[in-house]
Amino acid sequence: MIANTPQPPYYAVIFTSSLTHTEIGYSEMANKMVNLAKKQSGFLGVESVREEIGITVSYWKDLESIRNWKENLEHLFAQKMGKNLWYSSYKTRIAKVERDYDFFKK
Amino acid sequence: MIANTPQPPYYAVIFTSSLTHTEIGYSEMANKMVNLAKKQSGFLGVESVREEIGITVSYWKDLESIRNWKENLEHLFAQKMGKNLWYSSYKTRIAKVERDYDFFKK
Repeated sequence: MIANTPQPPYYAVIFTSSLTHTEIGYSEMANKMVNLAKKQSGFLGVESVREEIGITVSYWKDLESIRNWKENLEHLFAQKMGKNLWYSSYKTRIAKVERDYDFFKK
Repeated sequence: MIANTPQPPYYAVIFTSSLTHTEIGYSEMANKMVNLAKKQSGFLGVESVREEIGITVSYWKDLESIRNWKENLEHLFAQKMGKNLWYSSYKTRIAKVERDYDFFKK
């Protein structure tokens, strides 16, 4: 689903990743983290797709919300599991959305 | 592939889309546009994944490079085809990448 975000400015966390061959527990943890993120203060939406690489973009009200989410205890545990088991590489980019526009077919 | 972008700041164009059932010509045009984007001044990289929705994030040196790409004649034609045929909806977000960090498994 395309996230229904408010008027800019707001923030995007662009998380691009490649997985290892150790997939045990990955999907469950990924779903759990999306559900947990949705409960955080300042969370605005998320878009996620995976094929060879995965791109997850989460949207946040401000940098403080992103920092709080990064330091959430359950999320810290998931990040550690991710580095140890599931991810062969990833890149996280923190970006300020300055402008957006959309199209919906009539 | 995870795009090998330079040190921030730089810009990201986050393009999230859903397709119609008219897929004729879509993949060819999408590939053509990626190859054309790569030749543009200020282009830094691209990441793209599609399942139910598609997320394509392209990275650019500055807003002027993004504006030039948006107004590229072949790209304008592709955008028009996209609205008429391929996309049921999309959202484009222009964002300034302020910070990034990555992980590569040893």
